[in-house]
Amino acid sequence: MRIVRFDNGGTPCHGILEGDTIHDVDGGLFDGLNKNGNTRTLDSVKLLIPLQPKVFYAAGLNYAEHVREQAELRGEEPKLPENPDIGYRANNALIAHNEDVVIPANAPDTVQYEGEIVCIVGKTAKNLTKENALSCIMGYTVGNDVSERTWQKNDRTMWRAKNTDTFKPMGPWIETDVDLEALTTTVRVNGKQTIQFPTNNFHFGIETFIAAMTTCLTLHPGDMIWMGTEGRAPNLQHNDVVEVDIDGIGTLRNKFVREGQ
Amino acid sequence: MRIVRFDNGGTPCHGILEGDTIHDVDGGLFDGLNKNGNTRTLDSVKLLIPLQPKVFYAAGLNYAEHVREQAELRGEEPKLPENPDIGYRANNALIAHNEDVVIPANAPDTVQYEGEIVCIVGKTAKNLTKENALSCIMGYTVGNDVSERTWQKNDRTMWRAKNTDTFKPMGPWIETDVDLEALTTTVRVNGKQTIQFPTNNFHFGIETFIAAMTTCLTLHPGDMIWMGTEGRAPNLQHNDVVEVDIDGIGTLRNKFVREGQ
Repeated sequence: MRIVRFDNGGTPCHGILEGDTIHDVDGGLFDGLNKNGNTRTLDSVKLLIPLQPKVFYAAGLNYAEHVREQAELRGEEPKLPENPDIGYRANNALIAHNEDVVIPANAPDTVQYEGEIVCIVGKTAKNLTKENALSCIMGYTVGNDVSERTWQKNDRTMWRAKNTDTFKPMGPWIETDVDLEALTTTVRVNGKQTIQFPTNNFHFGIETFIAAMTTCLTLHPGDMIWMGTEGRAPNLQHNDVVEVDIDGIGTLRNKFVREGQ
Repeated sequence: MRIVRFDNGGTPCHGILEGDTIHDVDGGLFDGLNKNGNTRTLDSVKLLIPLQPKVFYAAGLNYAEHVREQAELRGEEPKLPENPDIGYRANNALIAHNEDVVIPANAPDTVQYEGEIVCIVGKTAKNLTKENALSCIMGYTVGNDVSERTWQKNDRTMWRAKNTDTFKPMGPWIETDVDLEALTTTVRVNGKQTIQFPTNNFHFGIETFIAAMTTCLTLHPGDMIWMGTEGRAPNLQHNDVVEVDIDGIGTLRNKFVREGQ
């Protein structure tokens, strides 16, 4: 099932997407998703971020090649994390499919994409094991963890490197029927493929993260976990269009523009 | 004005506290705070966290003596941050005044308090200056940024050191009429004072943080900023009661219990 969230005359509404038809549902994401009989076409609506998340978790350094390349950029020895220590991002930065990423006028010229799978928590969860960890996940979407590498390298925290307004595109929708092992992530810049990798080739898998996290914290419906990215990315320029495609989930497309240009 | 949030038969409600009397208001924190004529006594209600925050910002290393003492604990040279780079905490960890902090059974014996002033954002804000930064703040409350120092030292992120469930007591209410220069923060453990410092003696002040943050991000009503703490704290034991008092705002009191004891 594909669950969309869209602007209905100023009110955010959820719907179930079948082909190109949206079937409106009553209530929110966790209110049963019952179709109310109204339909509309996908191309007639403005998509919103698929949910207003509660806690925004993000795994860092979670694919081997990305760790090696980030270390090389910093002139450091590559070091894979020894434990699944989760990180955080912030909701102010979220934008939807087809909205523009705005690079601040004062940002260095080192803004890059990070194409990621995003896990949406649907059930309250504490003390899960690797074996039942996925039971709390209601579905998956696609995220672009846009990063300003100079700020990321030099600042004490990742506040503006990762959480500048518009730096967290997410969407286009939530897909509930996913075979993680079958997924491939592909990123394209201006239509040209720049990287492709098996989505589930994590350093620490989703089950490992959730089992570790829920030893100390409770996951709640509406929380989400971004799972990190692979490889190295080019510096993006004004008007570049980035597509993050995870086959079986969807394609997230956003244009990058520089403020004031 | 003091704004409380309390449990009204299972529904969170806001009220205005005058003396020991709560005047109920209709709607939420940003719906005008109009008294609806109902009153109740403070001691008749269970207080809740004063708001369900949106983005949970936290300044780290923001008092000189705390920076020196944390560096000493790690065997490092003290280094005051060069820029006001804001950090983050997570909502799962929030608890209210008089609720218990639960130290996980597997946590080392190095759990400490951090008494802090908390700024509540009341207006959407971008590109503020130091001069008008405080215009977006609707009021202040008290926070205890409970920290497990061994995890903080050894983990790659502060996920469980700072964000374990119950590790973020906040309250008892929001005070809107505050003279920052006049405030003193006092912490007591089991009734005995352990530290006292001028609240506004920050390394980077609230205005400096807000001016810097809003160069890249938009603050929204319901966001909050925890401003850091001063000095060193003792390791807390099962049944210790910690009070963080900021005169003119209020006293936040929480018992610490170890899971399974």
